[in-house]
Amino acid sequence: MGYAQANLVILPERYAFDFLLFCQRNPKPCPLLEVLEPGKFRTDIPCYNIYRKGKLETTVKEIKNIWKPDFVTFLLGCSFSFEEALLRAKIPVRHIEENKNVPMFISSIACKSAGVFLGPMVVTMRPIPSDKVSRAVQITSRYVSVHGAPVHIGDPSKIGIRNLNKPDFGDPVTIQRGEVPVFWACGVTPQAVVMKAKPDLCITHTPGHMFISDLLNEELAAL
Amino acid sequence: MGYAQANLVILPERYAFDFLLFCQRNPKPCPLLEVLEPGKFRTDIPCYNIYRKGKLETTVKEIKNIWKPDFVTFLLGCSFSFEEALLRAKIPVRHIEENKNVPMFISSIACKSAGVFLGPMVVTMRPIPSDKVSRAVQITSRYVSVHGAPVHIGDPSKIGIRNLNKPDFGDPVTIQRGEVPVFWACGVTPQAVVMKAKPDLCITHTPGHMFISDLLNEELAAL
Repeated sequence: MGYAQANLVILPERYAFDFLLFCQRNPKPCPLLEVLEPGKFRTDIPCYNIYRKGKLETTVKEIKNIWKPDFVTFLLGCSFSFEEALLRAKIPVRHIEENKNVPMFISSIACKSAGVFLGPMVVTMRPIPSDKVSRAVQITSRYVSVHGAPVHIGDPSKIGIRNLNKPDFGDPVTIQRGEVPVFWACGVTPQAVVMKAKPDLCITHTPGHMFISDLLNEELAAL
Repeated sequence: MGYAQANLVILPERYAFDFLLFCQRNPKPCPLLEVLEPGKFRTDIPCYNIYRKGKLETTVKEIKNIWKPDFVTFLLGCSFSFEEALLRAKIPVRHIEENKNVPMFISSIACKSAGVFLGPMVVTMRPIPSDKVSRAVQITSRYVSVHGAPVHIGDPSKIGIRNLNKPDFGDPVTIQRGEVPVFWACGVTPQAVVMKAKPDLCITHTPGHMFISDLLNEELAAL
């Protein structure tokens, strides 16, 4: 509790500049916490997904046998950090209350492209009571390195979402009377964008097996 | 007035990943506003400095004749944006009052290295009245993409600065009684770091001939 978790993306070096540029241009869905230099590795992620040409090939506990010196490791911030801050401020986080995965939607917001990487922004939705929306914006704005402020507040159709009860990923959650759907950029975006680009090889963490950093969430917060 | 100005750095592609990573790891001295993909160019910067192996070779108005398709262009935010915000809040900016260049110092704060790029952080100093230091922190914190909050407040010796009247670059300014020296990361840092790495070729804007963007400073501000 209290420490920042991170999503993992490993790519061969020839994709690394474009992917780093994609993250730099789309900091809300792709908040970089760290990038290791080509060849540098860590061994403390508990489970990995291996994708070839954008398709999941296998899930493994170690990648030593396929590691190459040109692999570049990216660690991206995740919304667990700001959810902890929302809860501390007594702002309800519905999917946690209902013990579900956060609902995620492929929005009509286009990311800024970089080289081979392009695609729509995936967003998460959290229903927030009207009188707490402003506070939710303030709190998450502090966490620029873990998605930051909402990208959209209110009418889902404005960002191409037709049915809040049918998320593209995760689970639907209850929206109570007087609550506003609030949308944040989601860390699934870079994964979706990478798969779409069909690189020869891409390694990610397996969902639920993230990297746990030694950075406190509070260290990530500005102002 | 009101529009963000940017520092220019152009490097051959083989240095681009390391430099982009250096900027990502050191966002305060190297706040990236934009990176053009390899080969993409602009023609609206009025004057350029051309460096070979870290030494200034010449200053020219056009670079069409030496342009190569692997050149990568970086545009970095500059403190002019937050100085405008300080002035609007009636916080004095001494070097502007005294019609001087801001005093800059090579500090003992080490940047995080990336590949061939490493070196100390260059900082600017602005003397701020004690009762306005807190407000100056709040205001500049909003401008994360143009250096953001101060990196140090108070005792210059703590960051390796011996004499505030002898800046490494720029001009000394008057520090009045009851004023505190406040230090911000400076955009000279990436230039100094690039020169130290002695790349075969590097092109920058000529001082005083920056890139003027179509982004309002206010568009750069968070919260």
